Amino acid sequence: MTQPAAPSARTRVRRAANRASYEDGTLKAIIDAAYVCHVAFADEEGAHCIPTACWRSGEHLYIHGSNGSRMLKALLAQDACVTITHLDGLVMARSAFNHSMNYRSAMIYGRFELVEGDGKHEALAAFMEHLAPGRQQQSRPGNEKEYAATTVLRVALDEAVCKVRSGGPKDDEEDMALPVWAGVLPLVQQRAAPVRDPACSAPAPDYVVGWSLD
Amino acid sequence: MTQPAAPSARTRVRRAANRASYEDGTLKAIIDAAYVCHVAFADEEGAHCIPTACWRSGEHLYIHGSNGSRMLKALLAQDACVTITHLDGLVMARSAFNHSMNYRSAMIYGRFELVEGDGKHEALAAFMEHLAPGRQQQSRPGNEKEYAATTVLRVALDEAVCKVRSGGPKDDEEDMALPVWAGVLPLVQQRAAPVRDPACSAPAPDYVVGWSLD
Repeated sequence: MTQPAAPSARTRVRRAANRASYEDGTLKAIIDAAYVCHVAFADEEGAHCIPTACWRSGEHLYIHGSNGSRMLKALLAQDACVTITHLDGLVMARSAFNHSMNYRSAMIYGRFELVEGDGKHEALAAFMEHLAPGRQQQSRPGNEKEYAATTVLRVALDEAVCKVRSGGPKDDEEDMALPVWAGVLPLVQQRAAPVRDPACSAPAPDYVVGWSLD
Repeated sequence: MTQPAAPSARTRVRRAANRASYEDGTLKAIIDAAYVCHVAFADEEGAHCIPTACWRSGEHLYIHGSNGSRMLKALLAQDACVTITHLDGLVMARSAFNHSMNYRSAMIYGRFELVEGDGKHEALAAFMEHLAPGRQQQSRPGNEKEYAATTVLRVALDEAVCKVRSGGPKDDEEDMALPVWAGVLPLVQQRAAPVRDPACSAPAPDYVVGWSLD
């Protein structure tokens, strides 16, 4: 089965190209596993790299912020690069220079666009659903003033590339017999026990009870 | 006690400025807790955001890569922005728009410089020590060819800013009595059980045995 090709010159991976993927399913899984992305853009002060909450709905990645955000304004005027990285482990090889890391990363290039009207309401509902399924129906909904003060942007997923490494070390043949421990030291994003606000006496909903049981 | 001031215009936080910190200790703790950073720079194709391994030694943040890396070449010719983000939890507020996240992030602006000679050897030794303390003395050291094929860069920590949020939700006074669960759903980077390379029979050193016991 042939892999999809790079959608553009700037998404064509040169280094460790065997780790590149242009598969839609890989891309969406990496985005859906994330709560935060890093957004790069440039202005008269140079390049900036800003962490911000993100979520996916259909074929777009969404971000949001205050209307006053300089980043959100800048993103409407130029292409950006959005990167998500999940670090899965440290790869211990027998030789120093063959050490590596296991990871799943995605880069999305493109111009963000403004999401308004019903689309804005739907996007923010999808964000809440991503954070805590079902909570949208429990928390006090946003009022007109809150919606009006918030900007939602989205970028299409059509110019994107993923890079993934998994598995054990790749040592040189002549190093294989060295008496050095080799393998992977895994890292996982773990959910820890929920911490209730001391001022709250409401019962814990399913997504809170189940948060750290997975 | 007064806080240190922003070292430059581009590190002065405007949004949620109460979360900003210019403390040296805060910055170093955020870097030292990370294995990976995101580096933003721009070229004729626009802005890029590249994840890469990082470590600290003294007053610099270090990265490395192949001599052929386009990013490493670009970083010598322009200022970059390096960002590290640790996500610590999802903050569930009583109202939809007061939801937040707990995090520790650091942004470092500056021009990377080439690290050569003894400095390169020392920097890569510090990298290994960061990944696995003591392993530098066990794995097969790099040879001349391996060192020659690898580029090490560093950027000074003097133009940096951190942004940190911790603690529970901040709801509006009129929402406090709503019967909605409020609190924090914590996320932690957890170490999972080491996975030995099937071809390896060497005993596990301390940092492997202790990896997932912390």
